[in-house]
Amino acid sequence: MKCPPTSRAELAQLAMMLEVTAYPKPGNVDRCHDYEDTRLEHFLASVIACRPTLDVVGRGELSIGAAIYDAVVRTNCHLGGNTHFGAFILLMPLIAGGDIPGALRLIKETTVHDAVLFYQAFAETQVRVIESDGLDVNDPDSIEQIRRDQLTLLDVMAYSAPKDMICREWVEGFPLTRRFADRLHDAGGGAKAISPLFIGLMAKEMDTFIAKKFNAEVAEEAMAMAQEVLGGRRTVESMDEECIRRGINPGSLADITIAGIYLALTEGWQWDR
Amino acid sequence: MKCPPTSRAELAQLAMMLEVTAYPKPGNVDRCHDYEDTRLEHFLASVIACRPTLDVVGRGELSIGAAIYDAVVRTNCHLGGNTHFGAFILLMPLIAGGDIPGALRLIKETTVHDAVLFYQAFAETQVRVIESDGLDVNDPDSIEQIRRDQLTLLDVMAYSAPKDMICREWVEGFPLTRRFADRLHDAGGGAKAISPLFIGLMAKEMDTFIAKKFNAEVAEEAMAMAQEVLGGRRTVESMDEECIRRGINPGSLADITIAGIYLALTEGWQWDR
Repeated sequence: MKCPPTSRAELAQLAMMLEVTAYPKPGNVDRCHDYEDTRLEHFLASVIACRPTLDVVGRGELSIGAAIYDAVVRTNCHLGGNTHFGAFILLMPLIAGGDIPGALRLIKETTVHDAVLFYQAFAETQVRVIESDGLDVNDPDSIEQIRRDQLTLLDVMAYSAPKDMICREWVEGFPLTRRFADRLHDAGGGAKAISPLFIGLMAKEMDTFIAKKFNAEVAEEAMAMAQEVLGGRRTVESMDEECIRRGINPGSLADITIAGIYLALTEGWQWDR
Repeated sequence: MKCPPTSRAELAQLAMMLEVTAYPKPGNVDRCHDYEDTRLEHFLASVIACRPTLDVVGRGELSIGAAIYDAVVRTNCHLGGNTHFGAFILLMPLIAGGDIPGALRLIKETTVHDAVLFYQAFAETQVRVIESDGLDVNDPDSIEQIRRDQLTLLDVMAYSAPKDMICREWVEGFPLTRRFADRLHDAGGGAKAISPLFIGLMAKEMDTFIAKKFNAEVAEEAMAMAQEVLGGRRTVESMDEECIRRGINPGSLADITIAGIYLALTEGWQWDR
């Protein structure tokens, strides 16, 4: 019995599933703990709910802005809040484009309409994605400004890139996504590699979600904690406990992890070893 | 922003996801433990992989036998073995028929071709579904016999019903599925109800998967353990530990739990409370 080829949509869902079940992942929802309002089942329900969007994107039938909007609408229906907004920003161009160069071609082609749809999507969520002085998600005037200044979705991302590592991936060509995928290839297969690579990423890159939720000092503290874990000066359990207690969840690094797993899967990385 | 209506295919996936993440579930893979060869990710990968089949079944475009065959092919590709065979047997008629009466109408209409496809499906797996003297899954002559005797898939299920509670659901009109759904409604919403209801089911119904894997005595022992847990004479942890150590996994009751959750979801039960 031959296995049917796995679609890009399914690989993206596998990446989302493997990220959220990876354990331990200090500060984030993982297999062994929840936040009070957001539980493992919420993440997995989102993984299931976005499939129709991913299918259409995989066939190249939806613009990037429309794809993000559609996925957010579909995954915003449970009570766990939006769980994959940042992941969708990274995944959609990668799925539609096939690889990083393809994604960057599509990103360059994004339009003002994509930017408007993107703003409309996250106006409905409570996600800290873009908070800058010029363009405020919660301000309806922002959409007016996008139209007036004819900003494309890439323009919006470039505007936010200094403070947001997800936007930076768009602008700089997915360097962290690429690196995470490379590390997975180096590890030689098996989902068990995800957790240590995630902690390695935390030690090296400041999570901009934490910086927005708290401030840069707290984000740097989280980095330092991960460095202590890697250096054997602290247990991962104690780091996890402190992060959870203080609500320090590296959400943007989780999104980059999803994109990295997805990229690796498209390149033949085997999760099931 | 309005949530799009949730398709039957998606409700079935949610049911599979909620069953496997429910915790504690003595003896079975759950959120907090794996078997060596079959892990949480394998179950969740199957949940993701069967979506195309469920979509087609939800549109009524596939016969029951073909639906089970197609789902088994799609979910048999990871290394964790087949994880949802029994669940598909229950889900496919429920999805295609819309409710139990609709499922039973379709079950009565199953053909010899459905029976052949069903046998071809599980000839490829290593599932203890039907082991009887007359029709042996591993014996190619069985398919000959099905054709010669013109057995429909319902005939095959009726033949195996005395020893298999999944087949019994087909023949007797889904009584355990119905009861599990009713208990979920009684519990008033929230995925947390699943684990105690599962243990209640274990205490009341002998798992025929365990009976086939070991014998009826071991299956009765598992029932007795669940009764002790419900009676407060044993901790669920110690039951879980003993089941896992001895490989006593109530797989058929897990399948019925999935079908019960699915039925409840189609009737408006809210998992997300």
